[in-house]
Amino acid sequence: MALHGGIDLGGTKIQAVVVDEDHSVLGSARRPTPTSGGPADVVKEMEVALRDAAKAAEVEPAALAGVGVGSPGVIGDGSVSGAGNLPGWEGTFAVAPTLEAALGCQVRVDNDVQVATDAEFKLGAGRIYSSLLGVFWGTGVGGGLILDGRAWTGLGGAGEIGHMVVKMGGARCTCGRVGCMEAYAGRAAMERHARKLQQEGRKTDLFKLMEQRERTRLTSGIWTRALDNGDEMATDIIDRAVRALGAGIASACNLLDVEGVIIGGGLGIRLGHPYAKRIAAEMLPHLFADSRPPHVHVAALGDLGGAIGAALLLERDREPAASG
Amino acid sequence: MALHGGIDLGGTKIQAVVVDEDHSVLGSARRPTPTSGGPADVVKEMEVALRDAAKAAEVEPAALAGVGVGSPGVIGDGSVSGAGNLPGWEGTFAVAPTLEAALGCQVRVDNDVQVATDAEFKLGAGRIYSSLLGVFWGTGVGGGLILDGRAWTGLGGAGEIGHMVVKMGGARCTCGRVGCMEAYAGRAAMERHARKLQQEGRKTDLFKLMEQRERTRLTSGIWTRALDNGDEMATDIIDRAVRALGAGIASACNLLDVEGVIIGGGLGIRLGHPYAKRIAAEMLPHLFADSRPPHVHVAALGDLGGAIGAALLLERDREPAASG
Repeated sequence: MALHGGIDLGGTKIQAVVVDEDHSVLGSARRPTPTSGGPADVVKEMEVALRDAAKAAEVEPAALAGVGVGSPGVIGDGSVSGAGNLPGWEGTFAVAPTLEAALGCQVRVDNDVQVATDAEFKLGAGRIYSSLLGVFWGTGVGGGLILDGRAWTGLGGAGEIGHMVVKMGGARCTCGRVGCMEAYAGRAAMERHARKLQQEGRKTDLFKLMEQRERTRLTSGIWTRALDNGDEMATDIIDRAVRALGAGIASACNLLDVEGVIIGGGLGIRLGHPYAKRIAAEMLPHLFADSRPPHVHVAALGDLGGAIGAALLLERDREPAASG
Repeated sequence: MALHGGIDLGGTKIQAVVVDEDHSVLGSARRPTPTSGGPADVVKEMEVALRDAAKAAEVEPAALAGVGVGSPGVIGDGSVSGAGNLPGWEGTFAVAPTLEAALGCQVRVDNDVQVATDAEFKLGAGRIYSSLLGVFWGTGVGGGLILDGRAWTGLGGAGEIGHMVVKMGGARCTCGRVGCMEAYAGRAAMERHARKLQQEGRKTDLFKLMEQRERTRLTSGIWTRALDNGDEMATDIIDRAVRALGAGIASACNLLDVEGVIIGGGLGIRLGHPYAKRIAAEMLPHLFADSRPPHVHVAALGDLGGAIGAALLLERDREPAASG
């Protein structure tokens, strides 16, 4: 039986899995993404994570039929360029050849958000649809599109739903632009906003929680805890994010009229169904086809979706070419 | 040689053409859209417009291989429902059967914006692209999509680019929602805004020009004349519209990463290339892929594009089915 490996390279963690032909997870491992060094250090950690997952699955990496990688940045022919939230990764690094040499099996690389969307489409909450929008709510807000059963990637850069403008002249985004959905809903932007409000004198336990947990950033877990504790400022910031997500996702649906919306990403999965419902409610006032709104689901594959989707990359060779 | 008729049903005018197999226009005619009565009266005017175009082309309507209609509202099986900007057209009217009985040839009906986008894709400014966004800037702002060489209509309601949110909590749209691109850029919304500003004491010649021309609405021609005259208020309102178009179209491009954008519609065509350039410039600060922005063109088929596109509907029977 052919086993595949999958690696989800995120800004904070590297998640690896080994799956069988039914996409059942036989082994998994997680490592923090290096915050210093360069691409070679990050790829070394990817190798270690995959080795750990293979060990858990009781298989040698070289015995895998192949390993897929979902990565941020611009992907081209096994290389990754300009992955801004990874250390020292402004240039191009040949991820696939490096990992192939290290692991002894073939490696495929594609966009992290697109492989996670593919996974939800083929195995997760999007199985019942032929068109869907994946929204990955985490450090940033990424989008993936399935139209007529196939991934839509445009000229290679489609899916930047986080940088749709929801408020002209509004908040400055971490990307430098103004009024992007991510400027309100991305975890990085929310943290910046929280620091500013705290400096202006508003009370919050967010940063106290961060220190208690010995973290350097406001993780999804910290936000969730603060919400559970009734932290007023955290609640306000998340409410503002949910409103922006509602406006931005509704805009995308007005343009594309897809059947379903899948909410994934660190925050999306952590906050789960009650927040997917709230996002759907915030979409409604902006939806043109409000008599038949799209179905909104939480990503069914959870935290492992990105890595499972990466493992699916090896199956693409046996399929018709994707559009776009 | 098979000749086809095409009818573009607009909120202010009905444009009809007769074209040959090379899509050359052999005859055309235009009539104002009735502002009172009901669907039957509108369809009667469509019949008269088509008869006039056929007369100019020296052909009997019954000798046409067919007539295509581009219509606003919801299209289903030859019927049109809920065409809000047409008189008394809240319900459903069987346009195709009525016109078939009157003209003696087969009739096909589809969405006005989609047929105009198809025409630009097949015959106009979009010929060189396999993916494009058509933006029709007139009374409202409509959108049409070609992805991977085929029309994308989603569940039937895709392309509502005018109702993408560009400013949460912003201006109220003629659709009743808040912050839509059309609330800033649609001619109907701009006229409402102009009346309000005039009532607040701002000076403008817009309404004087309207009276001089014996019109009841601020047409594209009136806006253009006011701009040419250096009317400050008209200039401000159009600038605001261009900014909103820039933000909304950039948002759509961030999501879809299409090759080209075609600006059509009454205002888009009347204002032409200098304004397409201005829209492109206003898109740039919001574009994620700003190192390779999409090409922005004015619709090459001009005012007749919608009617020519409607005539193309008859060719669809000889093509693979469209997606979505």
